[in-house]
Amino acid sequence: MISPVYIIGTGLLDTSLGLKLSSLGSQVYLDDVSPSAMHLACDLGAGSLSDDSMPEPQLVVIAAPPDCAGELACAALERFPHAYVTDVSSVKKKVIKDVIRHPQAHRFVGSHPMAGKETSGAIAGDEDLFSGRPWVITPIASTDDKALEMLKQLALSVDAFPIIMPPDEHDRAVGLVSHIPQILSSLLASQLTNAPESYLSLTGQGLRDMTRIAGSDPTLWASIIAGNTRVIQEYLITLMHDINDLIDVLDNSNDDPFAPGLLRHLATYIHEGNRGVARIPGKHGGTAQHYSNIVILLPDEPGKLGQLFVDIGQAGINIEDVRIEHSSGQSLGRVNLFVQQKDEIRLSDHLKSLSYMIIGGN
Amino acid sequence: MISPVYIIGTGLLDTSLGLKLSSLGSQVYLDDVSPSAMHLACDLGAGSLSDDSMPEPQLVVIAAPPDCAGELACAALERFPHAYVTDVSSVKKKVIKDVIRHPQAHRFVGSHPMAGKETSGAIAGDEDLFSGRPWVITPIASTDDKALEMLKQLALSVDAFPIIMPPDEHDRAVGLVSHIPQILSSLLASQLTNAPESYLSLTGQGLRDMTRIAGSDPTLWASIIAGNTRVIQEYLITLMHDINDLIDVLDNSNDDPFAPGLLRHLATYIHEGNRGVARIPGKHGGTAQHYSNIVILLPDEPGKLGQLFVDIGQAGINIEDVRIEHSSGQSLGRVNLFVQQKDEIRLSDHLKSLSYMIIGGN
Repeated sequence: MISPVYIIGTGLLDTSLGLKLSSLGSQVYLDDVSPSAMHLACDLGAGSLSDDSMPEPQLVVIAAPPDCAGELACAALERFPHAYVTDVSSVKKKVIKDVIRHPQAHRFVGSHPMAGKETSGAIAGDEDLFSGRPWVITPIASTDDKALEMLKQLALSVDAFPIIMPPDEHDRAVGLVSHIPQILSSLLASQLTNAPESYLSLTGQGLRDMTRIAGSDPTLWASIIAGNTRVIQEYLITLMHDINDLIDVLDNSNDDPFAPGLLRHLATYIHEGNRGVARIPGKHGGTAQHYSNIVILLPDEPGKLGQLFVDIGQAGINIEDVRIEHSSGQSLGRVNLFVQQKDEIRLSDHLKSLSYMIIGGN
Repeated sequence: MISPVYIIGTGLLDTSLGLKLSSLGSQVYLDDVSPSAMHLACDLGAGSLSDDSMPEPQLVVIAAPPDCAGELACAALERFPHAYVTDVSSVKKKVIKDVIRHPQAHRFVGSHPMAGKETSGAIAGDEDLFSGRPWVITPIASTDDKALEMLKQLALSVDAFPIIMPPDEHDRAVGLVSHIPQILSSLLASQLTNAPESYLSLTGQGLRDMTRIAGSDPTLWASIIAGNTRVIQEYLITLMHDINDLIDVLDNSNDDPFAPGLLRHLATYIHEGNRGVARIPGKHGGTAQHYSNIVILLPDEPGKLGQLFVDIGQAGINIEDVRIEHSSGQSLGRVNLFVQQKDEIRLSDHLKSLSYMIIGGN
């Protein structure tokens, strides 16, 4: 077990980390520029107040914005001659740049626990925040192996799974799989601000899925994007070229649905999307799985969904995913059940035998 | 009841319509350029083979691509002097343009049942395809009131809900809420085709939601987009300007996260997205609802999900939405439960009393 741990910052991530490590028996010391935030985190059980009399920590965790995390890391390396130091900010390049010249830089390794919530602050802290989430660790050439080992151990101890990646690669990766999707979702949703009500009444599940993360926190995301501008800019330029090309294709058709090449071009765009989405890893980090899908029409009443799932559970079938379609107008839910292909026939037979209304699937 | 009904085309929509109307007791006659497709639909019980001896139908439903639906509609208006005629293609402008000059055009009204599946063809036909889905009806000035009434009746008889809208408005509406989301999802997913595996291993729920519809059928979508080029082009140009502006904002920052105005600009983009997504109607066509969210950590074993929902059902609480997060690496599911705000405390107390592992929410 890693102990003592000195956590600088008492926001959502750091308070959650303090709660979890304390519950595991680590001696956790908390620090924050805001005394009240620090006392709140302590009141919540995330650790004890830090002071000059505290023992030298084994590990220092800097939970500060990328712009000051580097300085704080250097200060920690000086104050504690033996401790290992990490930060948990969501973009790594700047932090590394600020620490790399420090003579003790080998005791520092950046990291990024990919966990979050809609809510924020110490009060939202929860010791299971990291469960089942990736915790990226970004060593550089000079990083001490022991520092890397300790971070792996830290990730595993909070039920996260460590992923080792160079800092630049991390920033490019999150730019693609996290920052760009957020930006596109927000831009798409912003197109709806002036749309007539009647347009929105035709909204289906596709638009709902595409705009869910558009509800994210502006302040948080502004800072994330601001910390990764070059990478995001690169992806956006590629996207803009694609959209530009598509606009040309549409323009050249002169509104003739059979203009030479039009259908080929359009089908290619959709097909490329098919190829891309097929690469997203499936559940539990396996390769992408194509689940069988069964759609059921269910009265929208308490207990109906419960009965459905208990009936499925009794057949010993594991549901891989569930989606409930909100089609406006009716008090009927369309429940999409996703199961392993091997289970499909058994499940549909089972549900039919219980006279569920199966209305589709593949 | 509308009978007899003459359905021209035996694909997914039309076969499904035939199945439903037949089950309601309507006399349905089927036709298709492909004799084998027609016979398959008949074998499936969607209706009887049409021939010259069939009685004059009350309603003719044209289920053909927009490019030929207009001609077929005109032919039907001539062949049947009293029948009302509709088409079900997903873009309306071209069809109306082809029919409007016909002397009997008042007996025609275009429509668009907004129902579909991943799978296609008569074999995928299902009589509940339209349940709880919007069925848009697009009358023009000259449209006979009786034609409009019959279409409303048709929609209601298949458990869809009719929405009346001018053709141009329909095409602009679906361009925004259906075609643009499809295009953005496909373009985003296509960015993944060349990404390193390691990037994809960091994929979270956001990217998964954003790329789900990127799995759609290229041929189908190429034809839909080709039928609505002008509208889609307009939206894409707006989007491209937004992306362009964002690229400039990022570029002007010179990679300084605190460049003057940067955070304000970025926060504004996200905030506009907040405003847009808040306008999407909630369940059952009500105004957008903000559900309370409770997150539970659940072992990924058969029956666990079932037990959870039955426990919720027993408390008489209605789950508005369910999302299961696939975080790679762990055999634990993060189950997001969405309930009416009034039910939140009761649900979390109930689940705690049953010692479920509640790990978040708001």
